[in-house]
Amino acid sequence: MENRRPLKIGIFGGGQLARMLCLKGHELGFEMHVLSEKPSDPAAQVVHYHHLGRADHPLTIKNFLEAVDVATFESEFLDAELLKDSEGDQRKIFPSPRLMGLLQDRLSQKDLLVEHNLPTLPHLPVSSLEEARKAWPLCPVGLVLKKRRFGYDGYGTYVIRKESQLEDTFASWGTDVPELIAEPLCRFQRELAVSLCRGRDGSVVVFPLVESKQVDSRCKWVKGPIHHKGGTELIKKLKSFVKKIDYVGTIAFELFDSKGKLIINEIAPRVHNSAHYSLNALTLDQFSAHLVALSQQKISTPQLLTRGFAMVNLLGHSTQTPSWKQPQNAFLHWYGKLDNRPGRKMGHLNVVSTSADQALRIALKEERNFKL
Amino acid sequence: MENRRPLKIGIFGGGQLARMLCLKGHELGFEMHVLSEKPSDPAAQVVHYHHLGRADHPLTIKNFLEAVDVATFESEFLDAELLKDSEGDQRKIFPSPRLMGLLQDRLSQKDLLVEHNLPTLPHLPVSSLEEARKAWPLCPVGLVLKKRRFGYDGYGTYVIRKESQLEDTFASWGTDVPELIAEPLCRFQRELAVSLCRGRDGSVVVFPLVESKQVDSRCKWVKGPIHHKGGTELIKKLKSFVKKIDYVGTIAFELFDSKGKLIINEIAPRVHNSAHYSLNALTLDQFSAHLVALSQQKISTPQLLTRGFAMVNLLGHSTQTPSWKQPQNAFLHWYGKLDNRPGRKMGHLNVVSTSADQALRIALKEERNFKL
Repeated sequence: MENRRPLKIGIFGGGQLARMLCLKGHELGFEMHVLSEKPSDPAAQVVHYHHLGRADHPLTIKNFLEAVDVATFESEFLDAELLKDSEGDQRKIFPSPRLMGLLQDRLSQKDLLVEHNLPTLPHLPVSSLEEARKAWPLCPVGLVLKKRRFGYDGYGTYVIRKESQLEDTFASWGTDVPELIAEPLCRFQRELAVSLCRGRDGSVVVFPLVESKQVDSRCKWVKGPIHHKGGTELIKKLKSFVKKIDYVGTIAFELFDSKGKLIINEIAPRVHNSAHYSLNALTLDQFSAHLVALSQQKISTPQLLTRGFAMVNLLGHSTQTPSWKQPQNAFLHWYGKLDNRPGRKMGHLNVVSTSADQALRIALKEERNFKL
Repeated sequence: MENRRPLKIGIFGGGQLARMLCLKGHELGFEMHVLSEKPSDPAAQVVHYHHLGRADHPLTIKNFLEAVDVATFESEFLDAELLKDSEGDQRKIFPSPRLMGLLQDRLSQKDLLVEHNLPTLPHLPVSSLEEARKAWPLCPVGLVLKKRRFGYDGYGTYVIRKESQLEDTFASWGTDVPELIAEPLCRFQRELAVSLCRGRDGSVVVFPLVESKQVDSRCKWVKGPIHHKGGTELIKKLKSFVKKIDYVGTIAFELFDSKGKLIINEIAPRVHNSAHYSLNALTLDQFSAHLVALSQQKISTPQLLTRGFAMVNLLGHSTQTPSWKQPQNAFLHWYGKLDNRPGRKMGHLNVVSTSADQALRIALKEERNFKL
């Protein structure tokens, strides 16, 4: 018997991931606190305890951590050192700022994957055109340059297919070349993803393998469950990995399905767009799992409620006020963002059906009722 | 295409029903407003727009109605006349205060059922011992006295099995006899319930028939779906009924299953405990349905996600701070009430499984992990 008082959980950040964490936190009886810059932020709209500020000042972080029992974040691109110092000896932030620091940098993230014998593409650190040129012969069909920090939704990723492109890209940076890693361009059949969640008590649960479709480097849809012959083995390795690095919370692995093999492309140390379907297709969603993980309680095993599911992101196409007809065959999750913008994630639709493909068909049809 | 701005929905009241309406309202992108007396009220905890006050003063109501596009309530025991007057000619409150007035009084509620040829027990208005005595011969196995107003969870209901009990009951009131109705005591096999939801656009949806178990006049559990040979016919009548009275929103019918017949015991003109299972067992929950009903959009058809489901209320047994182990096979919905009290509804558990009975078994087992 635990939880003698409602556990106070703080979230650094006020976007849609924080919002969905808060909505689920309310259901589970946690006292949800949000630190974000505006009262109109998606998560700020749904909590009583909104703290104005951002996680870039020691005093702000210290005050916020004092107001809560445990804290987490919706973006791994915070100042990990500052968080670690503010936390002091009493561990309050999960996943730990140490791991945030390792995973927010693509170089140390890749090194960690290699160190744990996890399947990933070879990589080289690159900080000049000369270094990039050295990587070129190792990349038969092209090369991908990725900024080591702050990349998301395709931002900070450069696909280079010709040597002249390499020169142009570096020329565009002038003398201000960012820290990069270089990888060979991977030809893949499809992109997959899988999320796990590990609790402070050591319990680990695994969410189904899904296919994730990117259009213009942005997730357009997700469907599942997906069966892949390499799935069981990879998941076994990932379970061992999260245990070894003492990870706490939900973690997402983005994968390439290439020539029948599963290759880890990226890790997101947080709740992730590719598992939003879990809000309606499973007996446990990734947000609840993340919060239970923080609470030192055992995480329950997510079980499918349906044979197939799909998620479609509702992306802005304009700056007009969104309008829509209420979906008839989908669960709507709207983020409450004040402004619409092309490419902005405004909400998502979840559909459950008799198969992944059928669910996706329905979701894409329902999406047409949204004018964004 | 509608919803050009987030629709502002106000709720009179800040309890658990308002809280669950708000959580679902956030998901659907409505701007949720709550009018309640304390910032610590269950619904107040989960909204940005909390208005301090109660619906017993014209100015409070007027100000609240001006802040929102439409409004609804979580309890039918408000001053219906005052709400109607405050609303003026512009209909903003759904279901209408007129219907709230008719349905909050057990006498006019019964008259309405009779008027629409709906199956219900015979009744007599009673305001004195003499009148109650006249009802006595019509009640072969006993008589039930119900206060015309403010009855819930067994409060205001008196089961009389002997004539001496009748005298004692009236003696306890002295000269202050409440307005009552008398009904014959009904021997039933089980209690059932069904909820419907009708939109402002005229769309009507029906939730599954469920069995509802009362212990000490308080709902202990609900399971479903239940099949009853009279179900289809009754639901047809209820659909016609809500249309004829121009009802808008979710409405619950509590039923007796007596000698193979379905008899309406009571109507609750709101979201209702007997349909809380809908949060996890269906493609549409009663709270979302209620809000969509208010929004003038079409309500989608709720479909089962599972073969069986159950809901168990988490009732207080003490004034101690509740504690629990995280359920492993159930969805927890906690209401965030500050104080525990014997009999108080502190939260509920939803379970989905292969049958109603199996779901109930699991729910009752999970309930044992709660110390309330």
